[in-house]
Amino acid sequence: MPFRYPSTIQFGDTDASGRIFYATLFRHIDAAEHAFMRSLGLQAERPGQNDWGLPRVHAEADFFAPLTYSDDVEIEVRVERLGTTSYTLGFKVWNGTDIAATAQIVIVTISREAGRPMPIPPAFRDALAPLVGETVA
Amino acid sequence: MPFRYPSTIQFGDTDASGRIFYATLFRHIDAAEHAFMRSLGLQAERPGQNDWGLPRVHAEADFFAPLTYSDDVEIEVRVERLGTTSYTLGFKVWNGTDIAATAQIVIVTISREAGRPMPIPPAFRDALAPLVGETVA
Amino acid sequence: MPFRYPSTIQFGDTDASGRIFYATLFRHIDAAEHAFMRSLGLQAERPGQNDWGLPRVHAEADFFAPLTYSDDVEIEVRVERLGTTSYTLGFKVWNGTDIAATAQIVIVTISREAGRPMPIPPAFRDALAPLVGETVA
Amino acid sequence: MPFRYPSTIQFGDTDASGRIFYATLFRHIDAAEHAFMRSLGLQAERPGQNDWGLPRVHAEADFFAPLTYSDDVEIEVRVERLGTTSYTLGFKVWNGTDIAATAQIVIVTISREAGRPMPIPPAFRDALAPLVGETVA
Repeated sequence: MPFRYPSTIQFGDTDASGRIFYATLFRHIDAAEHAFMRSLGLQAERPGQNDWGLPRVHAEADFFAPLTYSDDVEIEVRVERLGTTSYTLGFKVWNGTDIAATAQIVIVTISREAGRPMPIPPAFRDALAPLVGETVA
Repeated sequence: MPFRYPSTIQFGDTDASGRIFYATLFRHIDAAEHAFMRSLGLQAERPGQNDWGLPRVHAEADFFAPLTYSDDVEIEVRVERLGTTSYTLGFKVWNGTDIAATAQIVIVTISREAGRPMPIPPAFRDALAPLVGETVA
Repeated sequence: MPFRYPSTIQFGDTDASGRIFYATLFRHIDAAEHAFMRSLGLQAERPGQNDWGLPRVHAEADFFAPLTYSDDVEIEVRVERLGTTSYTLGFKVWNGTDIAATAQIVIVTISREAGRPMPIPPAFRDALAPLVGETVA
Repeated sequence: MPFRYPSTIQFGDTDASGRIFYATLFRHIDAAEHAFMRSLGLQAERPGQNDWGLPRVHAEADFFAPLTYSDDVEIEVRVERLGTTSYTLGFKVWNGTDIAATAQIVIVTISREAGRPMPIPPAFRDALAPLVGETVA
């Protein structure tokens, strides 16, 4: 069963078109990602407490149907890929029985000291590996 | 019993100080306001379906304690004042047993055609009046 | 000469990692897009004045270098593709002589009445066509 | 001559009412504040480089006229008060010759180590003092 995060499109998420401002969808995607990580016992980032970071190197979204104020959506999260120094999460934004949008985020683990990619920390790897649809070495 | 809206401080709500970016608190306040109105059967704004609007003419917040990523808060909403053409909502942001912030929003009902304040619509008045702490004629 | 839009990474654009919150980059991309359209005499959307809309159906970004508070960037905008009912804009976010990020947005012209894609309006086509790197019929 | 910061209301700043989403005004206010501080040679916050912080303890805004997409505004910034451990900035949002909104922000200087208010650092005091409309000891 994939993880699902409930969210509501807020009035402030819309723009003058009457629909969601597209950039705002990523705030919901981000909330889903963090809730997913916390559900695995992983705090994605604790400011100042880790010597490594998790910058996003790629983010994309496709929009299939309009989302608007007060829509209650569920955001499904999957681990699409688990690499050596990066992983990819996939998202489906369900509005009832329709997929209103999908998204994909690629996250790299970097050493703050070296400022360079480093192997995914064991706690992350151990938690994410069983969930991968497609594992890439 | 005042209305309470649960919300979570998101990673994207923080700024480089490690705490919530102050302007972002108003997004949570706004979500609480809309949830409160919907709990009363009032859809605060349906784009293009009402001939009146509900612009905010005043917004303020006081911050008593830092809010940070993954804090689960509850936002208490009260009707502080119900005037002829405007009303005031008050908010308390509870972080556990502490009040981390308070806010106050003043909303005016305007006629879109006239572009001017108009009496609060009866459905709003009827729903809000019983909840007022302090009614002002 | 491609269009360039100057923008500054704001404190509120950062998150607790100390760098830009990735979703916020799209706000800068959107500002650049609208400035680009206005430079062509096209108002991308005038709420309530057009019977057609310009929803985004795809948005993506790649991040090559961290952006942080007070970085003054220039966002280069290009018309990558001009189709029958959609067009693609490409963006390069220059931080000095480095490209810190790129983005791509696909915009569809829809008839509000029909709720379906419609041919790109002539004023848009005439303005965008001379700028296309790669025209697709 | 008070400091003035030019800003443009973006499409993503609006909401489904067709006007600016009120919370978004504070993003423009914040950009004006940081530009003002930089104009004085003060970097308001450099993440991780100062042992003190500048949290906001109060923020308020009054809205006098609608702001909407593509409005080019100028935000006037004044030092309204310079206390021992806090200062107050005042803002006027000019839309042409009209004041569309005003805002006020109260900022406290806190020691990160002690987590408590501390005297405003000398560089800030020296730069802000000559600009104060009303000095409070």
